[in-house]
Amino acid sequence: MMSENALNLNEIRKKYEELKGLGLKLDMSRGKPDTAQLDLSIPMLHTLDDNNFICENGMDVRNYGEFKGIPEVRRLFAEIFGVSAEQVLAGGSSSINMISDALKRCFINGPMEGFTPWSKLEKIKFICPVPGYDWHFHICDTYGIEMLPVVTREDGPDMDEVERLAKDPDVRGMICVPMYSNPTGFTYSDETVERLAAMETAAPDFRLIWDNAYCMHHLYDGDRDELANIYEACLRHGTEDRVLMFTSTSKITFAGGGVCAMAASPANIAFAADLIRYQLVCYDKVNQLCHTRFLPDKKAVEAHMRKHADIVRPKFELVLQTLERELGGLELVRWGRPKGGYFICFEAPEGCAKKIVRLCEEAGVKLTPAGATYPHGLDPKDSIIRIAPTYPPTDELRQALEVFTTAVKLAAAERI
Amino acid sequence: MMSENALNLNEIRKKYEELKGLGLKLDMSRGKPDTAQLDLSIPMLHTLDDNNFICENGMDVRNYGEFKGIPEVRRLFAEIFGVSAEQVLAGGSSSINMISDALKRCFINGPMEGFTPWSKLEKIKFICPVPGYDWHFHICDTYGIEMLPVVTREDGPDMDEVERLAKDPDVRGMICVPMYSNPTGFTYSDETVERLAAMETAAPDFRLIWDNAYCMHHLYDGDRDELANIYEACLRHGTEDRVLMFTSTSKITFAGGGVCAMAASPANIAFAADLIRYQLVCYDKVNQLCHTRFLPDKKAVEAHMRKHADIVRPKFELVLQTLERELGGLELVRWGRPKGGYFICFEAPEGCAKKIVRLCEEAGVKLTPAGATYPHGLDPKDSIIRIAPTYPPTDELRQALEVFTTAVKLAAAERI
Repeated sequence: MMSENALNLNEIRKKYEELKGLGLKLDMSRGKPDTAQLDLSIPMLHTLDDNNFICENGMDVRNYGEFKGIPEVRRLFAEIFGVSAEQVLAGGSSSINMISDALKRCFINGPMEGFTPWSKLEKIKFICPVPGYDWHFHICDTYGIEMLPVVTREDGPDMDEVERLAKDPDVRGMICVPMYSNPTGFTYSDETVERLAAMETAAPDFRLIWDNAYCMHHLYDGDRDELANIYEACLRHGTEDRVLMFTSTSKITFAGGGVCAMAASPANIAFAADLIRYQLVCYDKVNQLCHTRFLPDKKAVEAHMRKHADIVRPKFELVLQTLERELGGLELVRWGRPKGGYFICFEAPEGCAKKIVRLCEEAGVKLTPAGATYPHGLDPKDSIIRIAPTYPPTDELRQALEVFTTAVKLAAAERI
Repeated sequence: MMSENALNLNEIRKKYEELKGLGLKLDMSRGKPDTAQLDLSIPMLHTLDDNNFICENGMDVRNYGEFKGIPEVRRLFAEIFGVSAEQVLAGGSSSINMISDALKRCFINGPMEGFTPWSKLEKIKFICPVPGYDWHFHICDTYGIEMLPVVTREDGPDMDEVERLAKDPDVRGMICVPMYSNPTGFTYSDETVERLAAMETAAPDFRLIWDNAYCMHHLYDGDRDELANIYEACLRHGTEDRVLMFTSTSKITFAGGGVCAMAASPANIAFAADLIRYQLVCYDKVNQLCHTRFLPDKKAVEAHMRKHADIVRPKFELVLQTLERELGGLELVRWGRPKGGYFICFEAPEGCAKKIVRLCEEAGVKLTPAGATYPHGLDPKDSIIRIAPTYPPTDELRQALEVFTTAVKLAAAERI
């Protein structure tokens, strides 16, 4: 149902020109925490003020050693992943870097002992649920991986299609954000997780890159998505070497100074560790100790994340209320209502996303480029726009949304 | 000339057994700073106590962004490398990791645009000056690089041999520590640097991995080695894309929490940056800012390094004095007298290094494994032992040296 006013072209144009005249300079392009969120972790910087630099195993974290990470940080991530601490390698800032490193090992050394290094194979293809995380697609691109987009629904990627593609022996993996997904906000259903663990893959060394970046990022205390434990599912199906899990504290403590981790089967970890041992001396253990002194266990992380949610939730709600109020009557537009994560996924009328993003940009509001949520930037319907509401202060967000909804109306009106 | 007592076998055996009976547990195996050295950088942990997290370009270091490193840390390393800040990429902990990453790009993407990725080539060989740094050899090994050892003398590797090997098109690079080298302590002469820059290489994408880990690590204020600027030499010879330079603050601030950097030609940096941009979001910028607040420029680093030297120098001198006193008369043994770095290189009589290391181990003194300073652990003469005097407290170092010198005497005596 479309309201009368929504598509009064002249009025919309007038409003758009007015907004353009304000000379705004606003940024809704990336999933960045705002300053108030960063401030929540300032006490972490004082956890070593007692000059006690000794971690649990008696080691001075300021010195060399423990390339797998200090025991307490491996245990913290193990609790978050739902695996044992021996299955965790903890790193430095940027889990994307750790994902890229895992792919590096696949390409240079093979995913595990006995497998051909992927760089020696003719072609490597990955299943890429879409819309998805642009950085994942860029990483695949730097390795020359051919990306096979698969449509994501509320319960995860179209599993019939995933299972069909996995029968191609060139398909060696899949990369995804399974919880509060970037950008859809969806969480994979138990059935999706089970099928991913159970499915037959033609490639014996198929690797599922499970980027669980938002596993702690609930917006509502009493209403959260739950993600099934993929590792346990794989164990049940005897496919435990299939999955490599990643997460980080980038959006828990500092985006520019967190710690990250990989979890996997003992065989995967042993193989990775034998290579990592010589490819670095150690990650930043000082920061690892700061983190575990500040957030010693999952319960502490949950309490900390409630403070984040209190800052983030009103921004999500402002977006949803504004979209509903301004665009609720407009045909052919939809958007997600995520219970966590960092994004709201907006679906514009076909052929309008690029135009809307351009209109916003010309009015001083920067959005993620249209198409970015697809491999090579190619959104076949030119309709998906990722809204990242966390970074701007609320006032700026309100203005940015006014520009955005006006741009959507203008593009929709001009389309007719 | 050999003193009478030095090889009185019975006495030496008795002494060795006595030392063995002490049940020592000492470690001279790795080049680790001691606690007093680590304590020098405690003030760095308080450089953000004013809650000012904004770096020079106005960015909050706690948030995402600046994958090349914050401006001030790039400038600091630029000053240390003797290049412009635009030629520097600053990273996280572990320059070894950054070296491994650079090799990764060579293997996956080719060293630069237009070159074949090394993983697509039949064979990759590297020139490896020996004795050298064991971790370098391990890294090469993880990439399947065939290592060609070249003997190092006081002025650097045998350049006739290096130039001869570089004529082989499969030889794609060389990896070395050019200053206060690990383990010899030698610094490459101006002529060596010039010849490395000038030499013809059959491979057009030859890469010289210049691990300048000890460039700030002088033991004596008034008596230091000087290393010529390899980049300037390369510029003179039009080979500026040949060299990739690395260093870190691991032995300046915290071995387990420093920052590292790579410097190279603008073309190399542009190519690397285009890949790194998508393979990480950013390194730990919080730690980068801590570092530059604590050590804003090279002068500050030099002042800080004098404090390190005051701790390290007496240990080096204790080693040299003890070796001189105990082994000064012994034939077939020699050792270096470095003016900086972290190691003293000991040359035992041929065929004795493994035995000496074993004797020390059995008497509770851990040394770097004999052979470790050669690719695949193969020291052809079984004579090189790396002494790492920095980590043990002076008392322990004295005991360890007593064990070591006794073991050398015993091995030498039993050899006759």
